[in-house]
Amino acid sequence: MGGSVFGKNITVSTWGESHGAALGAVVDGVPAGIELCEEDIQKLLDRRKPGTSSVTTPRKEDDKVKILSGVFEGKTTGTPISMMVENTSQKSGDYSEIASYYRPGHADYGFDSKYGFRDYRGGGRSSGRETIGRVCAGAICKKLLSQMGIEVFAYTRAIGDIEMDPSKFDKEQILKSVTAMPDKDADEKTVEFINECRSKGDSVGGVIECVIRKMPAGVGEPVFDKFDASLAKAVMSIGAIKAVEIGDGCLVSKMLGSENNDEFGMDGQNVIKKTNHSGGILGGITDGSDIVLRAYVKPTPSISSKQQTVNKSGEEIEISIGGRHDPVVVPRAVVVVESMCAITALDLLMSNMHSKADSIINFYRNVTL
Amino acid sequence: MGGSVFGKNITVSTWGESHGAALGAVVDGVPAGIELCEEDIQKLLDRRKPGTSSVTTPRKEDDKVKILSGVFEGKTTGTPISMMVENTSQKSGDYSEIASYYRPGHADYGFDSKYGFRDYRGGGRSSGRETIGRVCAGAICKKLLSQMGIEVFAYTRAIGDIEMDPSKFDKEQILKSVTAMPDKDADEKTVEFINECRSKGDSVGGVIECVIRKMPAGVGEPVFDKFDASLAKAVMSIGAIKAVEIGDGCLVSKMLGSENNDEFGMDGQNVIKKTNHSGGILGGITDGSDIVLRAYVKPTPSISSKQQTVNKSGEEIEISIGGRHDPVVVPRAVVVVESMCAITALDLLMSNMHSKADSIINFYRNVTL
Amino acid sequence: MGGSVFGKNITVSTWGESHGAALGAVVDGVPAGIELCEEDIQKLLDRRKPGTSSVTTPRKEDDKVKILSGVFEGKTTGTPISMMVENTSQKSGDYSEIASYYRPGHADYGFDSKYGFRDYRGGGRSSGRETIGRVCAGAICKKLLSQMGIEVFAYTRAIGDIEMDPSKFDKEQILKSVTAMPDKDADEKTVEFINECRSKGDSVGGVIECVIRKMPAGVGEPVFDKFDASLAKAVMSIGAIKAVEIGDGCLVSKMLGSENNDEFGMDGQNVIKKTNHSGGILGGITDGSDIVLRAYVKPTPSISSKQQTVNKSGEEIEISIGGRHDPVVVPRAVVVVESMCAITALDLLMSNMHSKADSIINFYRNVTL
Amino acid sequence: MGGSVFGKNITVSTWGESHGAALGAVVDGVPAGIELCEEDIQKLLDRRKPGTSSVTTPRKEDDKVKILSGVFEGKTTGTPISMMVENTSQKSGDYSEIASYYRPGHADYGFDSKYGFRDYRGGGRSSGRETIGRVCAGAICKKLLSQMGIEVFAYTRAIGDIEMDPSKFDKEQILKSVTAMPDKDADEKTVEFINECRSKGDSVGGVIECVIRKMPAGVGEPVFDKFDASLAKAVMSIGAIKAVEIGDGCLVSKMLGSENNDEFGMDGQNVIKKTNHSGGILGGITDGSDIVLRAYVKPTPSISSKQQTVNKSGEEIEISIGGRHDPVVVPRAVVVVESMCAITALDLLMSNMHSKADSIINFYRNVTL
Repeated sequence: MGGSVFGKNITVSTWGESHGAALGAVVDGVPAGIELCEEDIQKLLDRRKPGTSSVTTPRKEDDKVKILSGVFEGKTTGTPISMMVENTSQKSGDYSEIASYYRPGHADYGFDSKYGFRDYRGGGRSSGRETIGRVCAGAICKKLLSQMGIEVFAYTRAIGDIEMDPSKFDKEQILKSVTAMPDKDADEKTVEFINECRSKGDSVGGVIECVIRKMPAGVGEPVFDKFDASLAKAVMSIGAIKAVEIGDGCLVSKMLGSENNDEFGMDGQNVIKKTNHSGGILGGITDGSDIVLRAYVKPTPSISSKQQTVNKSGEEIEISIGGRHDPVVVPRAVVVVESMCAITALDLLMSNMHSKADSIINFYRNVTL
Repeated sequence: MGGSVFGKNITVSTWGESHGAALGAVVDGVPAGIELCEEDIQKLLDRRKPGTSSVTTPRKEDDKVKILSGVFEGKTTGTPISMMVENTSQKSGDYSEIASYYRPGHADYGFDSKYGFRDYRGGGRSSGRETIGRVCAGAICKKLLSQMGIEVFAYTRAIGDIEMDPSKFDKEQILKSVTAMPDKDADEKTVEFINECRSKGDSVGGVIECVIRKMPAGVGEPVFDKFDASLAKAVMSIGAIKAVEIGDGCLVSKMLGSENNDEFGMDGQNVIKKTNHSGGILGGITDGSDIVLRAYVKPTPSISSKQQTVNKSGEEIEISIGGRHDPVVVPRAVVVVESMCAITALDLLMSNMHSKADSIINFYRNVTL
Repeated sequence: MGGSVFGKNITVSTWGESHGAALGAVVDGVPAGIELCEEDIQKLLDRRKPGTSSVTTPRKEDDKVKILSGVFEGKTTGTPISMMVENTSQKSGDYSEIASYYRPGHADYGFDSKYGFRDYRGGGRSSGRETIGRVCAGAICKKLLSQMGIEVFAYTRAIGDIEMDPSKFDKEQILKSVTAMPDKDADEKTVEFINECRSKGDSVGGVIECVIRKMPAGVGEPVFDKFDASLAKAVMSIGAIKAVEIGDGCLVSKMLGSENNDEFGMDGQNVIKKTNHSGGILGGITDGSDIVLRAYVKPTPSISSKQQTVNKSGEEIEISIGGRHDPVVVPRAVVVVESMCAITALDLLMSNMHSKADSIINFYRNVTL
Repeated sequence: MGGSVFGKNITVSTWGESHGAALGAVVDGVPAGIELCEEDIQKLLDRRKPGTSSVTTPRKEDDKVKILSGVFEGKTTGTPISMMVENTSQKSGDYSEIASYYRPGHADYGFDSKYGFRDYRGGGRSSGRETIGRVCAGAICKKLLSQMGIEVFAYTRAIGDIEMDPSKFDKEQILKSVTAMPDKDADEKTVEFINECRSKGDSVGGVIECVIRKMPAGVGEPVFDKFDASLAKAVMSIGAIKAVEIGDGCLVSKMLGSENNDEFGMDGQNVIKKTNHSGGILGGITDGSDIVLRAYVKPTPSISSKQQTVNKSGEEIEISIGGRHDPVVVPRAVVVVESMCAITALDLLMSNMHSKADSIINFYRNVTL
């Protein structure tokens, strides 16, 4: 496997390079009977589109999705859903120089070492455009999850030193603000900070938080395919992400057991946890609380300020990367994190249908009745 | 898949419960011709054994491994290696009360929700003893990696607020110190801190760091099976780990691009990176530097101080967990992190043999000559 | 993957060599709540035991299974079930000569080419004893299938030129007759024929038929994971099987469309097929009729009559294979075919729970109610 | 997994329905550096095109492939290769009536049972057009195999009762004759036979044989992923195939061990087999001889003569299927069998690079030198 296939029950195969003919995804294993149209996908794709504010690249990427298979008379048929976005705005001319050297912070050197050469246009397969396929797949999974009342939403938690204030959390702001921050004040300060960095030819990183709400207790597999382990892979597989936390995350290393344990209590007939240090997952299995994940995003490696590097002839050189790059990828990556979490959540929920013999026996009885 | 199978080229199936007859692993895909004996496995297993110091549980776990298949005349044969550790010291009587309620910080409630009931003796499958199978598999992978000069080693980076001092790093100390800290002073302070917590009926967490050295550039797959994503899943799948960082990890969110980028330079004929913020991985592919990962471990959830919880009848109750529990699992988990990283590293290195058409053609020519 | 792992929802990892310490299987993904004891497994294992009649090897193989994990208080827990059969009757001395040459009809030469050397004792991993792990796993799957009323049974259809007479089919005879033929007359003729071949130092092949009854229509995946394709792999993976047919099998190549098509009709409210040329599968998906598969088994390659071959030094030599070999493996392989079909059938039935969005939504609702 | 993903090292995801916008495949895991252009794919696709002779449907299917990703400057890059064939000649109007009833010999009833409804236009996903994606993937694998000297070729062995005469085997005829039979006389007789059946509103089946030449000994995995088992699944997954044989196939059931065993001998320094009853595979591992497989194809189920069936309202009705259908699919399916065998052969050859520890150590040394 070349690493572009993801998932077990829902299997996502993504393809495409930054400056090739198109990018897309084939999603196999989507159950039949979900109402689905291109607009369902497009809504999410538009959230990763650049050029919509001062904090993203001014490049225009007019990403329109086409559904090529797997949908008939407005419903999924159970067969693979192929989705494609044509590359219309990419000009190869912009990238020709980059072919000769290794950009710091990029995968150029790794690609050449691995494959012997690389499609250097716009980063090729390691471009951020690769995430288009992930969002296409995520949109479908989110749609089915939402029919069960399971909600998956992500937002910008911090950019640089500026963190949103949880007490001012306003969900509406996620889609309204240019930074995808659910806190109006923090958003404004952040825009200022980003523009300042950009004017210096530099870039910044940040933190994305994702919440999965209404996932029942008991989902996730107990050993290697733990819910948190699966999320960690899904999210760490997004370029630029260097750390993943669940619940209290890194902080747990400094906590006492008496502080970190969440006590159980009753809410009427329902078992609840009084706190949620666990981030909704204990021993790899959901505990009924909100699942909370944070992803740490590094600053965009393409910066215009001068950097030392080497070229393919083994000479040390000084470069300055031109072009129109995002000073920060966090706002555009929010929907990608959300998509990867949605795919993972649905996949594990589907696996859970096999946990009890009774579920299988009941399914069989319903089919044969 | 029930989630107890791991890896693609090297496939590890672990099995066993805390208080069942035995625990073990079947490792399929191990290439033929590696010299292997039980002592190779036992050495690593002994590093996760409790009862060897004041900072671990005084329980005796006399874990002796047997190799049941896949080794002939001292060498691996290419067929599955089955390894087993019999449970000799586990007494079911100790755990009978636990059956009736959900321990805070444990997977009890999740297991009951998922499966309808659980093997409550010592945590059953979610016990720390589950990691025995991982270490058995890791030992084999480490052995083959070491024959290529690739080294995988982990150690305790911090416990509670006490962090080792990197300037005092002494690798010998990892195996000598009771905390697995490679810094003698920090180790001493830590032992004191742990004993203090234990005396209060409480427990502590910590940080484990793992380094993979001499992995060539170009290993890892570019999209979903990135080297860091694969490590993240491997390590997050270990119970009690709530965060995983690669390289500068969480810190990248506060760095500028000009700070976070590692410049390339030449060291004679070799391309090198002048710094290693990336932790040896760029765009999911190794860059030739040391791979550096940190795992954040939560405090042991089994504590003797009083906690609120609920029982299976839906009543709120107060409990105090008796028994002989580790006040901190970090020192014993070090070899588990090391094992999971070794399995992942070997698996991805093997995938890399398929990256170039020339490698395949050359292999074929060598076989047919 | 080294090829000893099978299945997607039910994942079977088998291990062990003919003359190693033990053989076994780890079965992951078995749902929780199935009543299971060692006797459930032993009953099937005993059907592949030799030494019980004149038509099998007189070697004694006292194969007693132990369940090591995954069962608690008489029920499966949802975690991996590890089963082991110790090798008690194998004597390595018998096989030492075989190490030096390649036995015709055996995998010796292939193993040496692949791995550089081989565990030559009794065929090592390519011994018929490898199938013990398959039967252990099959027994569990058969048990769950039977709780839904789905029956999987196999029998000897033919040995050499002697074929059972379908009009005399007597299911009771499968377990009673030494050839596993459900036709008393054919059984008697067959025993005579086998003994005649054996007395000449020769061996014979045969045909095994397997029927899966009460599998509902709609099971199987439409493209690569067709029900028949999955069965074909499962059954062809058993050593000595050289052809697999579904329904009318090879005969279809000589039929007209008007002869081969099964017409549909109504039986009360139910759609039925008036004939079953399809063998219960159309386009890879079950059609509600009995699933019918036939496997063609080659004659045992170990024969005492003289054969030409080469040794590892590249010399042409003449050999005569001693030892106590089965003159025919068909009767003992019946339960192995049955086991592989049962594993495959359950696995695909479990996948089918994901075919419709409504099934998933209903599952979720039941869990959260 | 919905069953449209195939392969382990080479992962093929196919998609598309008969009358959707397009069909295609994404092939992940193709190594970098293979020269590849659309013409390489088109050549094979043209072999499955109808309308080129009297023995196929007169429907026009102008199937032109586009490569959308994974190729840069004429070479594969190691990233997923996405290929697409647009549906230009399909008219949905032709199929509207079929929506209401279940065609005998087709998967209609199975699809409705499985998914609740189906894309009935031209068979939807279960149309023969689904094989376009398989051929696209096969073309790439064949190209790389041919660079090693490994040849994969298939041909029509028989149609109805007419079998080619092996003594007249003329490889050139495969591509020249309308039946893909490598025997001119048999081809002529066959064309006559097919036309006769067609004129009666009936259809016929046949046998496809595939040979893999120059595959070295030692390839294939010893237990579940045997070379023959993997081929069996690959080929049986093609619609209309009801039996698969390796080597002497079904005949082995009537042979004696002394007849069926292939003796080994020396040809200079090389071990050879004096006969090839085994079809190139022993114990699941190649033995250095030609790999020989036969697939039995059923007669096209769409026939114009009258048939009884039922409609979705549960009424018994009589139908006659109109439209322009192939009277035999064998000639067009030859390249599909060839493609599936090529994918499987390359995949297993790649796995074999991991069989010996020395191969891995040598690979690592070459990379790091």
